[in-house]
Amino acid sequence: MVAEKGTISINTENIFPIIKKFLYSDHEIFLRELVSNAVDATQKLKKLASMGEFDGELGELTIKVSVDKEAKTITISDKGIGMNAEDIKKYINQIAFSGAKEFLEKYKDTPDTNQIIGQFGLGFYSAFMVAENVEIITKSFRDETPARWICDGSTEFEITEVEKTDRGTDIILHVGADSEEFLDNFRISGILEKYAKFLPIEIEFDGKVINNPNPIWTKSPSDLTDEDYKAFYKELYPFGEEPLFWIHLNVDYPFNLTGVLYFPKIKKDFQLNRDKVQLYSRQVFITDDVKDVVPEFLQMLHGVIDSPDIPLNVSRSYLQADGNVKKINSHITKKVADKLQEIFRNDRTGFEEKWESVGVFVKYGIVSDDKFYDRAKEFILLKNTDGKHFTLDEYREKVQTNQTNKEDQVVCLYANDVNQQDAFITSARKREYDVLVMDSPLDAHFINALESKLEKTTFKRVDSDSIDKLIDKGLNLESVLSDDEKKKVEELFKEVAGNNTIQLESLPADEMPISIVQPEFMRRWKDMQRISGQGDMFGMMPMGNNVVVNANHSLISKLLKTEDTEAQKALTKQLYDLGLLAQGMLTGADLTKFVERTVAGL
Amino acid sequence: MVAEKGTISINTENIFPIIKKFLYSDHEIFLRELVSNAVDATQKLKKLASMGEFDGELGELTIKVSVDKEAKTITISDKGIGMNAEDIKKYINQIAFSGAKEFLEKYKDTPDTNQIIGQFGLGFYSAFMVAENVEIITKSFRDETPARWICDGSTEFEITEVEKTDRGTDIILHVGADSEEFLDNFRISGILEKYAKFLPIEIEFDGKVINNPNPIWTKSPSDLTDEDYKAFYKELYPFGEEPLFWIHLNVDYPFNLTGVLYFPKIKKDFQLNRDKVQLYSRQVFITDDVKDVVPEFLQMLHGVIDSPDIPLNVSRSYLQADGNVKKINSHITKKVADKLQEIFRNDRTGFEEKWESVGVFVKYGIVSDDKFYDRAKEFILLKNTDGKHFTLDEYREKVQTNQTNKEDQVVCLYANDVNQQDAFITSARKREYDVLVMDSPLDAHFINALESKLEKTTFKRVDSDSIDKLIDKGLNLESVLSDDEKKKVEELFKEVAGNNTIQLESLPADEMPISIVQPEFMRRWKDMQRISGQGDMFGMMPMGNNVVVNANHSLISKLLKTEDTEAQKALTKQLYDLGLLAQGMLTGADLTKFVERTVAGL
Repeated sequence: MVAEKGTISINTENIFPIIKKFLYSDHEIFLRELVSNAVDATQKLKKLASMGEFDGELGELTIKVSVDKEAKTITISDKGIGMNAEDIKKYINQIAFSGAKEFLEKYKDTPDTNQIIGQFGLGFYSAFMVAENVEIITKSFRDETPARWICDGSTEFEITEVEKTDRGTDIILHVGADSEEFLDNFRISGILEKYAKFLPIEIEFDGKVINNPNPIWTKSPSDLTDEDYKAFYKELYPFGEEPLFWIHLNVDYPFNLTGVLYFPKIKKDFQLNRDKVQLYSRQVFITDDVKDVVPEFLQMLHGVIDSPDIPLNVSRSYLQADGNVKKINSHITKKVADKLQEIFRNDRTGFEEKWESVGVFVKYGIVSDDKFYDRAKEFILLKNTDGKHFTLDEYREKVQTNQTNKEDQVVCLYANDVNQQDAFITSARKREYDVLVMDSPLDAHFINALESKLEKTTFKRVDSDSIDKLIDKGLNLESVLSDDEKKKVEELFKEVAGNNTIQLESLPADEMPISIVQPEFMRRWKDMQRISGQGDMFGMMPMGNNVVVNANHSLISKLLKTEDTEAQKALTKQLYDLGLLAQGMLTGADLTKFVERTVAGL
Repeated sequence: MVAEKGTISINTENIFPIIKKFLYSDHEIFLRELVSNAVDATQKLKKLASMGEFDGELGELTIKVSVDKEAKTITISDKGIGMNAEDIKKYINQIAFSGAKEFLEKYKDTPDTNQIIGQFGLGFYSAFMVAENVEIITKSFRDETPARWICDGSTEFEITEVEKTDRGTDIILHVGADSEEFLDNFRISGILEKYAKFLPIEIEFDGKVINNPNPIWTKSPSDLTDEDYKAFYKELYPFGEEPLFWIHLNVDYPFNLTGVLYFPKIKKDFQLNRDKVQLYSRQVFITDDVKDVVPEFLQMLHGVIDSPDIPLNVSRSYLQADGNVKKINSHITKKVADKLQEIFRNDRTGFEEKWESVGVFVKYGIVSDDKFYDRAKEFILLKNTDGKHFTLDEYREKVQTNQTNKEDQVVCLYANDVNQQDAFITSARKREYDVLVMDSPLDAHFINALESKLEKTTFKRVDSDSIDKLIDKGLNLESVLSDDEKKKVEELFKEVAGNNTIQLESLPADEMPISIVQPEFMRRWKDMQRISGQGDMFGMMPMGNNVVVNANHSLISKLLKTEDTEAQKALTKQLYDLGLLAQGMLTGADLTKFVERTVAGL
């Protein structure tokens, strides 16, 4: 045998089962494809008219979709260019012959041609995913003899003449037994609602126009009012609250991208949203899974992106590596940062009011995208327990004098639960320390990121140590207790404090006699792990708390002087319980007994 | 024009881009397809040998996969039936020509043939999703001249003679620039790990066999020990805890299904698991998204299901309507119920020990599948605060006498947080009431389902009313207060209780003076909504609590006798705070002040 060359032939008998089985995993796509074809045929006619190659009446161009449950048919009718028998043979009978390509070839020197590209040939065949018989009845804009084509899903077809008075194409699907689900009006209107909502030609179903052919992202920002943007938001998310603000995207080079992104209001305990950014390609809905197109931290945004330059139907990892996608990604990030900066500079009050929502994006951005910090550092806000907002610089300025420790670190105090940590906040306030509110699930990570960016700055939760150690200025009060007395006090509390560590300190006499603190480091790691959903590695070991005993409190002296052992034990227990209580840690039978004891004492 | 018939022709120039773009949305599938083809080719040879049509040495049949990063190739080599030049033309050059179909035709009267069906032709072409050039070097089992086929992804191919000493086929993919991600060893071993882990012929990559060709689900249960099942579980989920028990599925008729389902240990605050049931088709991994095949409430099970009868690559709604899928669904439900009943009957103690995990399935099943209750009612368990378990009948028997109210309803009391509701449990215990533990997120729905199934039975959380009203037996204690005094007490507490309702009651003198209760009905709806993730419709309105004042408590009499108005107010506040405290509702500044007050009083 010598080298032999040849051409791969395709066994056409097998092509329909393949299309049916593999082409799209989701059969409902047939309607997107056929309606898109109808739109293409209509746009082609408008184009020809605008170029003077068609001088008839355009008339009403609405595309009509209808379902006949009795006859088991779905019909898609357009008033577009239509076909004669020769066109059908050329465009329909040859699978994957790109009609649009040839059309483009002819008019390649005129602008706007890329609006007309469509998967003319292939898309049509998706009809066989749901239909046993497909019928085409069509009349060309050149007013030739109308033609009827019918094919039963085998490779045999038949073309005949037919009566048809008006221009355009009717595609009639004779739906197979497998696919009768698609004969349901609700189902069809659901599919149209999903894919055709913003197609550029009017689509009518069940007597109503179901689409908005001129969605705002196709218009120029200068022609739009705030009300237009808000109305469009309602159209996208009928049940959504009014958005905070929006960004109109409009890029021509080096890739083509239009769209409007909205910042929604975000609740404190935000969850993954059901309302997502929607991806379109020339006004045809593609997906709302924009994982690789929109930066992770902006996936909670709402709105639409329309780009013919995002490769579809390719593998995820390929998408990640795609140059255009990367550029789109960083363009969106930049636009978002610019918009936030603009609002911050022009309307600081408004920006602060929106911070609860905006902060989620900003914090997530800082945590997940190293470069975003540089864009955002000017407008990152911190909120304190008085509800006042500060930039990073302003806050440093505010607390520097009073909250610098002996190692020259500025210590920022924060509470993650203002209610639960009230006793500690009260204690910090006595020293005129400021306390920040860090109650978002992202804050543990956010604080970590800030510590790595800011110089000589550390964050400590307000209940993570005794008030003197939180910001250790190296000034130690003298203890009123002798060393023996200290030892005795420690022993007494060890009896009641289980595994917790006793930490005897000489605090001012007006500080609480006992407080329970949770060291910052371990606690923050626990928080971060919990939020990252990595499970709780430390969950097994009950985190050791520290029991801070204020040696200078009069009740500690009283405790030492109590001679009756039972009374001494009872006072120790009562003091310890009060420490737990202030931390919200006194629960169950211990709490019940505490209440009973207190009631009995009244 | 008269009627014209014809045959649809396929423009082959366009077929490769179509395959590349549309065939599978996930390009990594090429490796599954090529390795599956290699397995088929090997199994065909074994089949021929077993039928005496091949009498050569089978030898080692391991399939080898290798990556050459320098040469940018991926090679899949098998020792299967191989091909001569004619075979290649027949099987490879004609897309979608099902080689397996012809093979089956020939041997259709022998059993087991359906093991050999594969998408021989089509699967091969998925190679072009990642390769610019594909080379086949192959030698038939009939020991003919070896052949080399090469194709550059256009429709041109070339066949030449080649040197090859051993039987079988090498597929060499010359990977395109777009797809270099697949030249990474980690990537390839990841894909093999995912799809090829249990293929029936040994697959070698990087010098190691990566699959288990005889997974336990292909074996007979009688040949397997508990250790085998546990070892296989570890193979599936290396980081999983040991499973509780398992069910071996083995169905021939009316559909073909094998598999092993495991009951995992489930943590109390269970989340959606990352470890999922895996779906195979003849040992080829298909998906771990079994949403429509396995009943919803069993999707937290672990293990594998293998069935050639589950239609793949079809639309989700079609899958839901598929008769086989429905039968598989109810077969699995029945098997699970049978297994649970068997364990319950044979090993009640073991069943109780596993209830924390098993209960999640059972409760979810009862809530989501109406028929499952009938299968499960015998072995539904209730656990009380002593940690004892009861069936529904046993529990009714236990509490009937003491917990039937005046409307002849058995009232089952429960706590959802034993720690927080300790004061109320203590109070219920004084009356010898039993209290159930209902602390799973599903319990609000579970309780609702039980109330609708059980006659004359109602569930109330132990803190939902005063102890006398919880189980209202119509026996009212006389009040020690006059009507005027009652009015005065009500006024006093109205001052401190905000929007809460004051509920004056004549309880035994040893009950707490004040307790705060949350009416069952509203609270349960709130719980159910929260769990269903429907948001908190009632979240807006702060739920009205009731403040139960025990008119017969000595402190209430003392309060009335207190003449100093300030002292009276202070006592009222203190009593109210203690009521809040027992419910875990005293927080923030109120709690801080309470603690300070108490410290000052020591």
